[in-house]
Amino acid sequence: MSLIVQKFGGTSVGSIERIEQVADKVAGFRQNGHDVVVVVSAMSGETNRLIALAHEIQERPVPREMDVLVSTGEQVTTALLAMALNKRGVKAKSYNGSQVRILTDDAHTKARIKEIDDQRLHADLNEGYTIVVAGFQGVDEKGNITTLGRGGSDTTAVALAAALKAEECQIYTDVDGVYTTDPRVVDGARRLSRITFEEMLEMASMGSKVLQIRAVEFAGKYNVPVRVLHSFQDGPGTLISMEENSEMETPTIAGIAFNRDEAKLTIAGVPDMPGIAHHILGPIGDANIEVDVIVQNVSHDNTTDFTFTVGRNDLPRAQEVLEKVAKEINAREVESDSKIAKVSVVGVGMRSHAGVASQMFKALAEVGINIQMITTSEIKISVIIEEKFLELAVRSLHSSFELDKEPVNENAA
Amino acid sequence: MSLIVQKFGGTSVGSIERIEQVADKVAGFRQNGHDVVVVVSAMSGETNRLIALAHEIQERPVPREMDVLVSTGEQVTTALLAMALNKRGVKAKSYNGSQVRILTDDAHTKARIKEIDDQRLHADLNEGYTIVVAGFQGVDEKGNITTLGRGGSDTTAVALAAALKAEECQIYTDVDGVYTTDPRVVDGARRLSRITFEEMLEMASMGSKVLQIRAVEFAGKYNVPVRVLHSFQDGPGTLISMEENSEMETPTIAGIAFNRDEAKLTIAGVPDMPGIAHHILGPIGDANIEVDVIVQNVSHDNTTDFTFTVGRNDLPRAQEVLEKVAKEINAREVESDSKIAKVSVVGVGMRSHAGVASQMFKALAEVGINIQMITTSEIKISVIIEEKFLELAVRSLHSSFELDKEPVNENAA
Repeated sequence: MSLIVQKFGGTSVGSIERIEQVADKVAGFRQNGHDVVVVVSAMSGETNRLIALAHEIQERPVPREMDVLVSTGEQVTTALLAMALNKRGVKAKSYNGSQVRILTDDAHTKARIKEIDDQRLHADLNEGYTIVVAGFQGVDEKGNITTLGRGGSDTTAVALAAALKAEECQIYTDVDGVYTTDPRVVDGARRLSRITFEEMLEMASMGSKVLQIRAVEFAGKYNVPVRVLHSFQDGPGTLISMEENSEMETPTIAGIAFNRDEAKLTIAGVPDMPGIAHHILGPIGDANIEVDVIVQNVSHDNTTDFTFTVGRNDLPRAQEVLEKVAKEINAREVESDSKIAKVSVVGVGMRSHAGVASQMFKALAEVGINIQMITTSEIKISVIIEEKFLELAVRSLHSSFELDKEPVNENAA
Repeated sequence: MSLIVQKFGGTSVGSIERIEQVADKVAGFRQNGHDVVVVVSAMSGETNRLIALAHEIQERPVPREMDVLVSTGEQVTTALLAMALNKRGVKAKSYNGSQVRILTDDAHTKARIKEIDDQRLHADLNEGYTIVVAGFQGVDEKGNITTLGRGGSDTTAVALAAALKAEECQIYTDVDGVYTTDPRVVDGARRLSRITFEEMLEMASMGSKVLQIRAVEFAGKYNVPVRVLHSFQDGPGTLISMEENSEMETPTIAGIAFNRDEAKLTIAGVPDMPGIAHHILGPIGDANIEVDVIVQNVSHDNTTDFTFTVGRNDLPRAQEVLEKVAKEINAREVESDSKIAKVSVVGVGMRSHAGVASQMFKALAEVGINIQMITTSEIKISVIIEEKFLELAVRSLHSSFELDKEPVNENAA
């Protein structure tokens, strides 16, 4: 008898039929002797419907009232799922964020969880209830309703699993797990049975959008094992956990991530002096433009080239800002290129295995792909290449690191 | 500077356009120096939409979860109205039942208010906020969401007015006040500028469905002056208050009420012995059938005729029950008639003015209407007549009691 937290997103509860299917699944876990806490999102489309109502009134409505408004979406789902469970003879109770008492800060529309009161939930679990909790929402110290921002339901689930010391937090979604890379790009892409929190973070931030980054960070911080599963297909999914808990022989590389939403800006002929990076990136940050990869090369002739990437939507604004900066600092010119993409190999095994970088560069060279920029972290190597080579690069790397082959011990876990 | 509680029903907040109109109205009261607490219902159609979702799952869903579900409807309106007020520069905050803390018993879907915490509201009022409260809902001692049943928003408004010691509770609706009778039946029907709680109760229970009966009872119990007004037309409306507060010369009769939803059952040739009324009505009550008028005439030959009325929908079931009872007590026969209606004259003045009954019967006789049953209370006389004579009866009585004429002192108040 163990406690499991399960999270179902908007598509998984998008209709009464779907909610009934979820109820069947939860009832199955109950029958197998598990205690279950279910976290649900708003039925798909509902949050957008509510936001559209608010926008009829005002373009930027008061954040406090936005939270009051959109938090009703999840509450509706909790009630409906609790009804569907009761109909199946599974004693169930719904809770909204305020009822659990999921205490957050007061940053409306993007609040952060500070504390979860586990008393009422434990009392109800002890009485044999299955609990259905509204994801994405909480309450501040003054009793105002708050929301965690889009996708916050994942965070609610992980935080509840941590607070209740659940055995596992299961995130049900429309994919059956985390893959070595995007199966739409590489036929041989393989579902990972395990991945570490750190690897998941690197994979998630790069476009494998299975799980909210904040939820993964939270899971890592509190060491909550998270399993990604398909809502309506059976299967073991992918377990995201601490490296130390893994009993398998860690494969060197977990997967190949990539991101097309990159545009490159170079400011060339920059006088090489202290503080120049800040002088260039400060105004970009002030304009609320997020910067991804940054590369500054060694200087020659006392000038240097400074290159960074931004999201493609931000390119025109970033360019405008940069032209001004170039004049101020007497740089030679500003160049930009939006036909680029980023490819990364991710894996905690990289730490102890030399040669990953050289193997990566060799694989790309063998298919004639030129590398424009390189950045590295402890568990990730990323390169910027021409966008048209993206699929080729991903496939070559996937094959070079033998990701299509099942690791020997992985499924022993 | 006085505090006013205003309640707007589902139709008055049925669209964003309407919500903006309500915001204009509330902003106007603020500008005139009033503190305002607004109570709102769900946008029209929303409650039915939510109930339909629940019924897709189950015919009789768990009442606790029904309350969690439908209470979201009012919460949505509070947020939208608070946004619309803030847009107009009126500082506003929404509250749901749990946030105010409207404490109720735990009778889900038909809870009763036990206590209202006025602290947070007073604190916000003192800081210059206009408060928007979700009607129809509360929270029980364990923190479960409860609802007061359909139309409960009126009760919320009156209870808040009582708790906050508001000067007046204004109920905005789709009529501009309480009328001497239904204007669709009598052209000369006149808006009353004042009516007592007791008269309103008798009028409301008879089909002049302007205000929930429970709200009127509550208002009477706590002596909260209630004013019925049109949502989108200016006018003084009708003030419902204690008789004692009235400075006017009370007119004898306040109005003519009527009800078509009546069906008559007679059990004839009943042995006249103690306990026989209970023997007949007990099984009817057990079958959850509500009885309205009851008449038992003096007996002759040691048998009596026992007649009562029920709602028309309940007639077939009531008849079935009564046939069984008739056999058990050896009654002669059971007769029924659904082509009847009830007409009542209502007025606190009746207490001290003799002759109201005889004037009523005379007026009906003059137009040739036969009276089938008569019941009387302190402030009401009701007769059951053939349904086809209903309009004629109402018009005759309205004219006989000169209700189309403005009372001399009434508008001095």
